Amino acid sequence: MTISITTYDWVPDTAVGYVRDLRIRWACEEAGLPYDVETTSVREKTPQHFARQPFGQVPILRDDALSLFESGAILLYLGERSEVLMPLDTAARADTQQWLIAALNTLEPVVMDMALVRFFDHDARTEELALPRLHVRLKQLAPLLKARDFIAAGRFTIADIMLADVLRIVDRMGELASYPALADYMNRMTARPAFRRAHTAQVHHFAQAV
Amino acid sequence: MTISITTYDWVPDTAVGYVRDLRIRWACEEAGLPYDVETTSVREKTPQHFARQPFGQVPILRDDALSLFESGAILLYLGERSEVLMPLDTAARADTQQWLIAALNTLEPVVMDMALVRFFDHDARTEELALPRLHVRLKQLAPLLKARDFIAAGRFTIADIMLADVLRIVDRMGELASYPALADYMNRMTARPAFRRAHTAQVHHFAQAV
Repeated sequence: MTISITTYDWVPDTAVGYVRDLRIRWACEEAGLPYDVETTSVREKTPQHFARQPFGQVPILRDDALSLFESGAILLYLGERSEVLMPLDTAARADTQQWLIAALNTLEPVVMDMALVRFFDHDARTEELALPRLHVRLKQLAPLLKARDFIAAGRFTIADIMLADVLRIVDRMGELASYPALADYMNRMTARPAFRRAHTAQVHHFAQAV
Repeated sequence: MTISITTYDWVPDTAVGYVRDLRIRWACEEAGLPYDVETTSVREKTPQHFARQPFGQVPILRDDALSLFESGAILLYLGERSEVLMPLDTAARADTQQWLIAALNTLEPVVMDMALVRFFDHDARTEELALPRLHVRLKQLAPLLKARDFIAAGRFTIADIMLADVLRIVDRMGELASYPALADYMNRMTARPAFRRAHTAQVHHFAQAV
């Protein structure tokens, strides 16, 4: 049975290309896993949506009888389906999971705090608190990505999908420019044909939305 | 070889019982995995620390040649070592990973934002922005934990360790009281003998610190 990815039926123009179904599309494209797309209303979230995703978020994966949410958990699941996404070797696999989680739990929260204040809250003091917390993490990450092509396991993995997609948000806020190693890494990852196909598909999906 | 958990050599009194090595101690206690504790300086973080943990955080796990950071990744690793912590069945395992990640990526960021403002930043507008974002998530979570004993897979898993430990922070801020189902769940999890042993060991560790 084909994998199905549930995403929103519509998002504002500013979110197009950044909805987290992109991470799942990208993984499927890398692994050659065909997928369908289902939609759920973003403006009037349905009981059916909350039954599958208690926080009303997307993406949600459907694979046969399995329904799974959280982009990080879906990437782990797909990583277990395809060695293209996550190595089988215990140490390399642990390294992959470590960096997937670091991207989700150490980087993404400080990135999203800045994105919230920059795009929604517009509160000067909140930004003043959030901005240095973001840059502490970017400064710590930069030397690592100067010294390696991929973040984990010496090869492309789901950790790169997660980390590069988090760095895209930083780039969009104009905060990545002072870290050439991070910008180069993000550009290398997003130049991959699988990313391009996934990105094009998401843009196309929302261009057709009403 | 025995597992080793690296934590700080000292933390302020207010952090005792809440340092994230607790999650790893708890998992080891549940699974009957013996462990040693190593320390690293919190006041003068060393190059050796940053070499093992680029963000200067704890905990770090050592298992033979493997050195692993991020409490979520360490729990996944231990979950693969012991079925007591994570089921082998594909669907139950995916459910466990889904809730581990939801606790880390959907709940912990809004919890930590509130903890930062409450314990460090003391900025009224930032709190006014952060507080409703926390309560949206708690409201969505509460009905689920009213209807089940454990968050994932119908049994105790690493997802309970992560979720219960995140809810402890909410409880400490006095924001859990209006969610009896969440408070009951947290109390059930932290009444487990393995949690009690882990908590006592952490408190004892920092009581001896200088």
